[in-house]
Amino acid sequence: MTTQELVQEIKRKRSFLCIGLDVDLTKIPQHLLKEEDPIFAFNKAIIDATHHLAVAYKPNLAFYEAYGIKGLEALGKTIDYLNQNHPEIFTIADAKRGDIGNTSGMYAKAFFEDLNFDSVTVAPYMGKDSVEPFLAYENKHTILLALTSNAGAYDFQTREVEGEELYKHVLKTSKTWKNGQNLMYVVGATKAEFLAEIRKIIPESFLLVPGVGAQGGNLQEVCKYGMSQNVGLLINSSRGIIYASNGKDFAEAAAEKAAELQQQMDRLL
Amino acid sequence: MTTQELVQEIKRKRSFLCIGLDVDLTKIPQHLLKEEDPIFAFNKAIIDATHHLAVAYKPNLAFYEAYGIKGLEALGKTIDYLNQNHPEIFTIADAKRGDIGNTSGMYAKAFFEDLNFDSVTVAPYMGKDSVEPFLAYENKHTILLALTSNAGAYDFQTREVEGEELYKHVLKTSKTWKNGQNLMYVVGATKAEFLAEIRKIIPESFLLVPGVGAQGGNLQEVCKYGMSQNVGLLINSSRGIIYASNGKDFAEAAAEKAAELQQQMDRLL
Repeated sequence: MTTQELVQEIKRKRSFLCIGLDVDLTKIPQHLLKEEDPIFAFNKAIIDATHHLAVAYKPNLAFYEAYGIKGLEALGKTIDYLNQNHPEIFTIADAKRGDIGNTSGMYAKAFFEDLNFDSVTVAPYMGKDSVEPFLAYENKHTILLALTSNAGAYDFQTREVEGEELYKHVLKTSKTWKNGQNLMYVVGATKAEFLAEIRKIIPESFLLVPGVGAQGGNLQEVCKYGMSQNVGLLINSSRGIIYASNGKDFAEAAAEKAAELQQQMDRLL
Repeated sequence: MTTQELVQEIKRKRSFLCIGLDVDLTKIPQHLLKEEDPIFAFNKAIIDATHHLAVAYKPNLAFYEAYGIKGLEALGKTIDYLNQNHPEIFTIADAKRGDIGNTSGMYAKAFFEDLNFDSVTVAPYMGKDSVEPFLAYENKHTILLALTSNAGAYDFQTREVEGEELYKHVLKTSKTWKNGQNLMYVVGATKAEFLAEIRKIIPESFLLVPGVGAQGGNLQEVCKYGMSQNVGLLINSSRGIIYASNGKDFAEAAAEKAAELQQQMDRLL
């Protein structure tokens, strides 16, 4: 998917909502455990109930790997279901990968070719040659960790490197990499006050913003400082939407929470 | 496995060799492609031929994920085969994971409980709460990326942060984390000249050292600057050993290359 297509979808739906499909079998409605594939059954119900409100879905790989082969089969079914039924929706493999070039190329193949995700999250620590194999794919997007939503972001990301914070070095340096136009960045909603500075470095790049909801980030603040001319934001909510209810009404409850966020987004656009 | 058990095994075998099981179906002997599970058939033959020469095996997850469910089944069979037949051998899931705490906990479960690896490699960019869920497992080891073997290591890892290089901050900060005694570190063999400085910060921690062989690192240099009282080194070679031949003699050829390295290590101990 091109960035332009993503922007069109945001304008059509009046939404820049991304729903995190972080399926934990201890939190989903217990009646689903009787299904042959409870994880996929849960995802399908959430997608069916919310696809008109969201422009992106983001499964976090950890939740699927934790269930072994069955988890990865459920992930495969989920991305196939999205690509077949909602090809206009942007898909994000939240995998936070990154390795030496030869090896990053294998990860890029897994996520972009085999699973056919539109994008993957990547960690910057290993530098240019660990990221460029992902960037080489046309109309695929590499979402680099810049400033994450967790407390540990202050351990290294905000430390001063030669006069400015490490995450700013990551932003500036990555812009110079080959096919840098395929980069998006993770910036946590809990760090909204940093967004004005970030926009000076990357005025138009899309930002994937986790941390609204369960982690305490504020949507209005994020938009005030982070919105670009082309919107440039994907706001992710996972637990706040998908676990709104753990009864038989879980999908309707998720849709209600998603609609609340979409309506707020409509007013902010 | 405890660190003490690993040290005993190193002394018993007179080896601190780790063999990287990075299986690429385009590089393995073509007669194996007729096997039901070519990846596992390859790994089993390599393990059978080299287990007396190596103290650790390190599958890199990217190579398995690139083959989808079949790749992950082969990974499961490989780790089960090692744990059942060679429980004295240290196993490393080279996965370079790291996420917010809740999510890192799911990765830790996948690698330490379900797959039952002795250790996993983790990226430090997201800080303390992204690593501590791995550290919480007793007698399991978290191998944190410090100074990697690739060119991109110079993009961020060696940049000066408040007076010293970022990788040194990673070493010093991580030492203070809860259960920090379960940490080991990745330091590339191509950066041997940095090892003396690294040993001032972490005199006894084990270092996983990739980059000897195909990437050009020098074993003597690494030992000169990096060996600790308890050896404290696991030297990894992947392509240089497992692809020594792509004929029917591939396992014997791998054993020969492994034996060459083991004999060099014997002299250096």
